[in-house]
Amino acid sequence: MLKKPRGTEDIFGKKAQDFFALEMIIRNVMELYNINEVRTPIFESYDLFSRSAGESSDIVNKEMFVFQDRKNRSLALRPENTAGVVRSVIENKLYLEENLPLKQFYFGPMFRYERPQAGRQRQFTQFGVEIFGGKSPSLDAELITSGIEILSNIGLQDFSVKINYLISGENKSKYIKVLKDSLAKMKLCEDCLNRIEKNTLRVLDCKVDQEKFDNIPSMSDFLSPEDDQYFKEYLSILKRMDFSLEIDAKLVRGLDYYTGIVFEIVSNDERQGSQSTLLAGGRYDNLVEELGGPQISGAGFALGIERILIALENAEISISQPTELDVYCIPLSKQAELFTSSLLFMLRKAGLKSDTSFVNRSLKSNFKKAESLKSKNILLIGDKELKENYVIIKNQTTMKEEKVKFEKILNFLIEEL
Amino acid sequence: MLKKPRGTEDIFGKKAQDFFALEMIIRNVMELYNINEVRTPIFESYDLFSRSAGESSDIVNKEMFVFQDRKNRSLALRPENTAGVVRSVIENKLYLEENLPLKQFYFGPMFRYERPQAGRQRQFTQFGVEIFGGKSPSLDAELITSGIEILSNIGLQDFSVKINYLISGENKSKYIKVLKDSLAKMKLCEDCLNRIEKNTLRVLDCKVDQEKFDNIPSMSDFLSPEDDQYFKEYLSILKRMDFSLEIDAKLVRGLDYYTGIVFEIVSNDERQGSQSTLLAGGRYDNLVEELGGPQISGAGFALGIERILIALENAEISISQPTELDVYCIPLSKQAELFTSSLLFMLRKAGLKSDTSFVNRSLKSNFKKAESLKSKNILLIGDKELKENYVIIKNQTTMKEEKVKFEKILNFLIEEL
Repeated sequence: MLKKPRGTEDIFGKKAQDFFALEMIIRNVMELYNINEVRTPIFESYDLFSRSAGESSDIVNKEMFVFQDRKNRSLALRPENTAGVVRSVIENKLYLEENLPLKQFYFGPMFRYERPQAGRQRQFTQFGVEIFGGKSPSLDAELITSGIEILSNIGLQDFSVKINYLISGENKSKYIKVLKDSLAKMKLCEDCLNRIEKNTLRVLDCKVDQEKFDNIPSMSDFLSPEDDQYFKEYLSILKRMDFSLEIDAKLVRGLDYYTGIVFEIVSNDERQGSQSTLLAGGRYDNLVEELGGPQISGAGFALGIERILIALENAEISISQPTELDVYCIPLSKQAELFTSSLLFMLRKAGLKSDTSFVNRSLKSNFKKAESLKSKNILLIGDKELKENYVIIKNQTTMKEEKVKFEKILNFLIEEL
Repeated sequence: MLKKPRGTEDIFGKKAQDFFALEMIIRNVMELYNINEVRTPIFESYDLFSRSAGESSDIVNKEMFVFQDRKNRSLALRPENTAGVVRSVIENKLYLEENLPLKQFYFGPMFRYERPQAGRQRQFTQFGVEIFGGKSPSLDAELITSGIEILSNIGLQDFSVKINYLISGENKSKYIKVLKDSLAKMKLCEDCLNRIEKNTLRVLDCKVDQEKFDNIPSMSDFLSPEDDQYFKEYLSILKRMDFSLEIDAKLVRGLDYYTGIVFEIVSNDERQGSQSTLLAGGRYDNLVEELGGPQISGAGFALGIERILIALENAEISISQPTELDVYCIPLSKQAELFTSSLLFMLRKAGLKSDTSFVNRSLKSNFKKAESLKSKNILLIGDKELKENYVIIKNQTTMKEEKVKFEKILNFLIEEL
């Protein structure tokens, strides 16, 4: 049997409804925040990702779907969408002064060649926000609050907001030296040992050795006065909005391009397991320039749609309405079936959600079908009714049955609903 | 500079709004018709497409993005979505009696490696409907009317509905013999000559030789009595709905899997050029079985989103609302800027679309920005106002300015809107 590729999913039924309901909640928040949609290609040049995520990142090294086109150009299915959005901002010159801050969001499939596990497929869906220009603590606050608002509009409550300020420049070198000295005294896992030279800060992220880092020097003590001031201002803005935050000096992110404020919103529900990070992001003030654009600051976050749906399930929150029909038609003869086709066309034109059986079903199983579709009305028509120009409409709430003349069907149903 | 891959597009600004507006119109029709969403993977096994579209089809031969995963499995970016939906129906056993007819729709990116031209990119977006089981003229009518309703809800009017009934079985062999005899006497293009043996009916589709086929024997004269009866019933149902149809006995489709009724809705607007087919589809009663499922009938159509957007532009129809803000805040000092952050948070929580400048702008260019964002109100706040707990709100329609106390801002704006 032909099967879906490993690590992909078919989404239908209630799950498809949940997907779209979630998208609509998100789009609503985006509208309130005046953040506009961008759609970038599903695949990009391999170079874009190797240059943005960093050659040494797991994504580029191990997790990309790479392929050649017929002209031998190296392409990759996008593993994340910040790089694509940045490329698009540069290529389309969207960074002009009058557009700033440019606030964009995206929604769509991403691809990582990983070992599939619950909630972690090779094709998954991300929503994200990217903001360019206008660097300020207020704008950083704008970014994270739009994310928090989404979670709260969905109904999720049990999460922690973790924030850090990634050290940079001279102070970073100083801190890394101190950090290395401190790590040198510890017995660390192999991953950590590899990272100490290549990307020292990422060691702090290690899940295995996490406990050993409790008394390590904190990067926040090494921030420059300006960075320290920026971070304090940001925190004070968020405090005024009554968020409970957690400053986590060990929070670095998996991608090399982050600078300044970074954050993660993590579910406190233990059932989320390895899927606990609901939303994460931060500032990347050098990325636009690194990818060939002008010196324009940037910041963004991404949110995993599948993870949010798991979190909703765990929290027993339902965001989609079950399908409900206005009318389910049951024709009782071949002639009545032909009539039903035109009737359906008219009902739908008038905005009534309508359907019929199409397949041969007994009256009993037709009634069952109408119930399973949660139809508010059942419309019956046979040869007798057809001849005398009426139908029988049964209201499924009141259980009342009425004869309704052809020309009054629409009014009758509209009045009732 | 890093560029988007050839044949792909960045969609933003008004175009992104149009995309989503179109999706919403379509989703609304789907709800009225009780057709439910399915999302299948962006890539599938190569075999799925070679088996469904046919090894000899252009799609499989020339146009697929094929790549290997790390286990050397051949995968392909989906060139169309009927095959994926059929695979999903089989794999998830959605064909059970009680689900029939199973009515599904999809929405998403497709990929064909073609020479890019206006309105024809390598990545493009399709919407489509697929219906399984319950084969009947009424169900075929259901399918095409849902497509026509979409076009009419969008506001498109200037199109033709072309319909044909593809001959099959014994009668097909008979017709092909007669057709070959008739074609043998003509001087045809190379494509036609190639097709005569491999796929004779496809010759009728040839754009180059079209004129020569005016007096060719018509396939409708060779239909079996049952097929003829089915076709007539279908046409009579559509006639009752007041559609103007055109029977086009030379309409075959580019894919090998069609059986029975096929249709195309073609724009009459000459400016559509080679992009004139807005929507096309038909019956494929053997495809489910050919792909390893049970003998279940199927029918569907697909519609090109980019083409529809071009048609809308040509017809000067606007489907998306321009962005409009409720409030644009202009802080006049650093302190006021911090205050604005919390204010924005509150305004948005109350459902008001709000924004501020974030970058340093003169008062004049801030007013300009507010106008370009079509903000209904401008809210001004400086140090004096901050101290005395009020803001100034200027209504951009009445041009009236009012002092509003902090605690009354929300009520004031909500009452006004």
